[in-house]
Amino acid sequence: MSEYSVIGKRTPKIESVQQVTGHAEFVGDMVLPRMLFGKTLKSPHPHAKILNIDITIAQRMPGVKAVVTGKDGQGIKYGPFRSTRDRDLLAVDKVRFIGDEVAAVAAVDEDTAEEALDLIRVEYEPLPAIFDPEEAILEGAPRIHDFAKKNIAMDRFWDFGDVDKGFDEADHVRRDRFSSQMTTHGFLEPHACITKCDPTGKITIWANVQRPFLIRRDLALVLGVPLNSIRVIKPFVGSGFGGKNLLIGLYYSSVLLAMKTGRPVKMVYDLKESIVCTHRRVPVILDIKTGVKRNGTLVAQHSKAVVDGGAFNVMGPATLYNIGLAHVIPYRLPNFKLEAFQAFTNKIPNTPMRGHGQLQVHFAVECQLDMIAEDLGLDPADIRLKNALQTGDVTVNGLEIISSGLSEAIQNATGKAGWKKRRGNLDKYRGRGIGCSSFPTGARETSQSDSGAIIQLTEDGKVILLVGVADIGQGCNTVMAQITAEVLGITMDDITTIAADTDITPFDPGAFASRTTFYAGNAVKITAEDVRNQLAEVAAKMLEADPDDLEFKDKHIFVKGSPGQGVSFEKVTKAAQTSGRGRIIIGRGSYFPSNVVWPDRKTQVGNITGSYSFSTSIAEVDIDKNTGKINLLKVTMAHDGGQPINDLLLEGQMEGATSMAMGHALYEHLIIKDGKILNPSLRDYKMPTAMDNPEMDIIKVIIHDPEGPFGAKEVGEGFICCSLPAIVNAIHDATGVWIKDLPITSEKILEALKEKITKS
Amino acid sequence: MSEYSVIGKRTPKIESVQQVTGHAEFVGDMVLPRMLFGKTLKSPHPHAKILNIDITIAQRMPGVKAVVTGKDGQGIKYGPFRSTRDRDLLAVDKVRFIGDEVAAVAAVDEDTAEEALDLIRVEYEPLPAIFDPEEAILEGAPRIHDFAKKNIAMDRFWDFGDVDKGFDEADHVRRDRFSSQMTTHGFLEPHACITKCDPTGKITIWANVQRPFLIRRDLALVLGVPLNSIRVIKPFVGSGFGGKNLLIGLYYSSVLLAMKTGRPVKMVYDLKESIVCTHRRVPVILDIKTGVKRNGTLVAQHSKAVVDGGAFNVMGPATLYNIGLAHVIPYRLPNFKLEAFQAFTNKIPNTPMRGHGQLQVHFAVECQLDMIAEDLGLDPADIRLKNALQTGDVTVNGLEIISSGLSEAIQNATGKAGWKKRRGNLDKYRGRGIGCSSFPTGARETSQSDSGAIIQLTEDGKVILLVGVADIGQGCNTVMAQITAEVLGITMDDITTIAADTDITPFDPGAFASRTTFYAGNAVKITAEDVRNQLAEVAAKMLEADPDDLEFKDKHIFVKGSPGQGVSFEKVTKAAQTSGRGRIIIGRGSYFPSNVVWPDRKTQVGNITGSYSFSTSIAEVDIDKNTGKINLLKVTMAHDGGQPINDLLLEGQMEGATSMAMGHALYEHLIIKDGKILNPSLRDYKMPTAMDNPEMDIIKVIIHDPEGPFGAKEVGEGFICCSLPAIVNAIHDATGVWIKDLPITSEKILEALKEKITKS
Repeated sequence: MSEYSVIGKRTPKIESVQQVTGHAEFVGDMVLPRMLFGKTLKSPHPHAKILNIDITIAQRMPGVKAVVTGKDGQGIKYGPFRSTRDRDLLAVDKVRFIGDEVAAVAAVDEDTAEEALDLIRVEYEPLPAIFDPEEAILEGAPRIHDFAKKNIAMDRFWDFGDVDKGFDEADHVRRDRFSSQMTTHGFLEPHACITKCDPTGKITIWANVQRPFLIRRDLALVLGVPLNSIRVIKPFVGSGFGGKNLLIGLYYSSVLLAMKTGRPVKMVYDLKESIVCTHRRVPVILDIKTGVKRNGTLVAQHSKAVVDGGAFNVMGPATLYNIGLAHVIPYRLPNFKLEAFQAFTNKIPNTPMRGHGQLQVHFAVECQLDMIAEDLGLDPADIRLKNALQTGDVTVNGLEIISSGLSEAIQNATGKAGWKKRRGNLDKYRGRGIGCSSFPTGARETSQSDSGAIIQLTEDGKVILLVGVADIGQGCNTVMAQITAEVLGITMDDITTIAADTDITPFDPGAFASRTTFYAGNAVKITAEDVRNQLAEVAAKMLEADPDDLEFKDKHIFVKGSPGQGVSFEKVTKAAQTSGRGRIIIGRGSYFPSNVVWPDRKTQVGNITGSYSFSTSIAEVDIDKNTGKINLLKVTMAHDGGQPINDLLLEGQMEGATSMAMGHALYEHLIIKDGKILNPSLRDYKMPTAMDNPEMDIIKVIIHDPEGPFGAKEVGEGFICCSLPAIVNAIHDATGVWIKDLPITSEKILEALKEKITKS
Repeated sequence: MSEYSVIGKRTPKIESVQQVTGHAEFVGDMVLPRMLFGKTLKSPHPHAKILNIDITIAQRMPGVKAVVTGKDGQGIKYGPFRSTRDRDLLAVDKVRFIGDEVAAVAAVDEDTAEEALDLIRVEYEPLPAIFDPEEAILEGAPRIHDFAKKNIAMDRFWDFGDVDKGFDEADHVRRDRFSSQMTTHGFLEPHACITKCDPTGKITIWANVQRPFLIRRDLALVLGVPLNSIRVIKPFVGSGFGGKNLLIGLYYSSVLLAMKTGRPVKMVYDLKESIVCTHRRVPVILDIKTGVKRNGTLVAQHSKAVVDGGAFNVMGPATLYNIGLAHVIPYRLPNFKLEAFQAFTNKIPNTPMRGHGQLQVHFAVECQLDMIAEDLGLDPADIRLKNALQTGDVTVNGLEIISSGLSEAIQNATGKAGWKKRRGNLDKYRGRGIGCSSFPTGARETSQSDSGAIIQLTEDGKVILLVGVADIGQGCNTVMAQITAEVLGITMDDITTIAADTDITPFDPGAFASRTTFYAGNAVKITAEDVRNQLAEVAAKMLEADPDDLEFKDKHIFVKGSPGQGVSFEKVTKAAQTSGRGRIIIGRGSYFPSNVVWPDRKTQVGNITGSYSFSTSIAEVDIDKNTGKINLLKVTMAHDGGQPINDLLLEGQMEGATSMAMGHALYEHLIIKDGKILNPSLRDYKMPTAMDNPEMDIIKVIIHDPEGPFGAKEVGEGFICCSLPAIVNAIHDATGVWIKDLPITSEKILEALKEKITKS
């Protein structure tokens, strides 16, 4: 039996009722007095000079209140890092991809704004465009930005250990080339905001973002105003998967329009706009060379990565870091070298998406590991077990593995799936594949990246929790309430969770890099313990006991070992806070892992977060040899995410990530031709639905992480990184062919099978 | 030169720009998705049985979404104290005054709701009504509530010292009868709310209230739900003067309608509705007997008060307490006896209004004191000086005077006004009068009445202050920001003040009883000091100094005495909060005066608040003997409010209170006939405007109160209590006649002058 009352339970999300009854308010639902509606005009060219923009007719249209263009941006450039500010608020001299925004209109209603766009006359001079990242970085390619010779947005070179010596010592070396496609986040709620600028200069934005505080920071930095001049309020959000991490044109246009009109401006992209003119997952071409000992021990790896970054740098530094990172986990790798480039192309720019930069690498490394196993006649599970990172390991670049359940995950998954008993059957086109991954539980931001929390108590024993976390549907408000309830021995309905509003809730960097439970959860735990300590003092007097001897459970405070001797939580909060006898109890706390070290600028050695999750997937497929149709029958998943806080949400993340892995492995693909996205809708861009999901078997490897709240670690991104290669490996197991370019469509299968038959 | 940088300055209100540019959002401006509009149906009878209410036709009207009546209240009764819950959410069996609400409608727009009211058929059986409070408490009067024999809503008896012995020892005894009129608060923004009930049962109310947290408490108690089931959010408020302290029918109707429809319901009273169907100032008839020594020393007082409470008890316990209280300050009074009754009448019920229950008494006591002075041939200023409470005094009922500047106030006011040099001139119908008062700086609530505060810091040295105070136009947000700025050595624009939202900001009982600066100001000061201490630790390391040796000034932290050796506030906040090097700084604090003692149930001895202000007004009038027109020429005001925090706001309170005193003394009067208010509009109910104000001469008696924040005490209510009798005394000084029934209209003057001439 669990030692916990609330932790590790299958607790439904606290907002479920609101959500299913339609009472949850999203930005699109909101109305402000005097509100206008904004729309943006997009470039139809992938690359063109802007010769002139004539807004006079649009401005005169009845109902139009303002039209803004790049000129209104006053030369301000944006980008999430100081080094990546390469984009005008609205395009000024040039457009660089189809969808690049050139003007914005605010009008009394959405239709008027939309109509007014047609009255804006933009004169373009088309320029030669470049779409292939490897061609883009060649001498003589059309230049997209004046400052970027050879269209290199960013590069990163790592060299840990002695790679040459490693390869010398290797018994077997393989080189392979893998490539991944462009995909979109596929959230159901497109980007939306309402922006209000008051006459004091304060800018308030209601926005469906994943990182309210970093949106505040980035906007303040870009506009050059203090942090308290910007307020970002996050209402309900219809998920993000990384696509709502960053500032996009929508926000800047709304700020320009709100400033110009003095009225709140609402802007809601339709789904097509969210797909074609914001950001998408970054495609990566990876040439990977790996050396192993005869027994499968990894000795060296050397990767060359070319990232198709699209028209702007955006997250280049993080993307390339993540590409490096995914090589050094989840296996021991003593020697590693990376050469990575992000190229500018005339395409929609990239942004984080579940497993940012890492999924693409895990796909390559895990598939190549199966090839190596096959080359050496080893069992794919055994070669993974042999190399698995263990608790106490430190990677070549300084990542500290303070807990690892990878070996257990592999053992449990293979055991449960009956791995040894039955493998692939080439005759029947049935196969099984394994994939492993490790994922950082969060990542350090360049500035403040602690999470904070505040707890207040009502007089009748109810708890108000203020946290800056961004619940975007993943349920972190519920997790924070659970942690509070556990510490204080109360129930979920005793707690009101308020999040997130940068003028109200304590700082939190937001929902990205699978950090929330670990960082914010710890902050909430510390804060709840602070409240518990304050109440224990009061209760101790009431019970004539020592504060340290008290236990908070079942809405009561007991003397440990004397379950009869207790006083209700409500009574204690009242006694503690009644005027003249006590004070108002306020709990506070913040958390940042003490073992984090920002990577050294030169050596790139550092420990970017407090702990790392470990995951294993075993996929089972059945392929129709006549049509090439791939049926993903079952995925067995074993996860070391430390102590689960909420099993329902944990399972949801594992299932969701595996479902997304299936989409990415088999069919998700933003198809682009001459710079134009051909399938910018969820009708034409195929994503798995719940109906498409395979049978999923979930195994929790419960290892208490010494740093995580109640021992919890990451769950959310890690699983896409192991399930995807598990599926690809299963396809190989079923067919004997390797397809190294995602997605693995039926067409590709059929072609490969044909080729194989021809060859044999 | 002041030792302070921000305290005691003429700082404009931080919301001024928003307010004057129309960007301040009041409840009436707000819009919620799916919002309905509510209206209530009022009784046309002062007293009647409800035989039947037929809502079937109204319910069927297109656009009507719900109609509720008393039945929907399910027997729930309300009132601000447990003992005063005598009112149905909507009238059930009976109506008790013209304006008593019997039904409410929610419809898609306001006009439809209004029209639907006409379709509700109410069958009444009129009952005999009673309007005179002295008649109401006689045997045989029509009974308004079954439970209240003789229509006594409340009584209170005090007996301190030995009154009989006191009168025995008196050289002179006077008995007089004074009475005051019914007045209305006269705020420009009528009552308004939007109420939303979500399917989890949570009720959120946006309301223009003075006490968001006590509205939450009262609503929770009445509905029998936990405190966290109710959220009260206060946007901008267009003043209250006590009229927005309590729950009124509007809120309950909106809750019933929001529950029934599942949609947000907006209700906005028009000004007439605010005047006729909410609450008004309580008229008091006071028979007062006072005994003095020949030299003017007060020895005994015995008062009988009859309060015209209207149809419901409402604030009876507080009203009668305040009537007693106003007798024992601002003078030493060793023996005091009170017999006070609040009568039910078929009129609009009472509620606090600036100087609640006290203004009426100070009017009587101060005027009678002038009569006594005249009887004894004493100077009215001297008799006041002789009896003035002094620092260290404790009143007969236990009020602790920890600081008193009353003597200084009298001396400074008389000096500045040239009191000794020129007094009244009966021939020229010019006169001068003096009035004094003392006012409690706040009052203890029956439950939690501490104020709390939380401070958060941005990374760039900006400060976010969360306080529960209710700024209703009086400027307390500005005062709280000033206190924060002073403690942290920063400026007003460094601070964002967030108030008030019961789910977000720390507890604060609200804006009533002139408590905010003293209670919340102290909480904010403690909280800012908590932040200062945390930052001092960080700065000390940066400056290699002792934390106690640091000074926070000019946005820098210096080593005391070394103004050159400093580091910027911004740098320190960044250093303190950068991840891995610090933590998120959160300040917390709460305040309740340590010297407050809740009056003993039996003896009624107790000290209800931390400190008391002292005030003196000298009024100068000029009367047209032919028309009776009274010109208030000038008021000289001296106030001991301790150390002023914001001179602009302090002066505004003094001027506003004196202006209201003028209105109450001379013309404000809600005229009621057969239970019907005849002048329910600001056209017919005359109030002074800025154009009517006399010349005002303000004297600040700056005495550091040992308990107040930076030494500050009350300002806001005290001045109405001294300015009103000063005006009445000046009229007597100018005319030789006494008018003891407010208001002193020209008609009354003319009549009294005629009578005087007849007599002489």
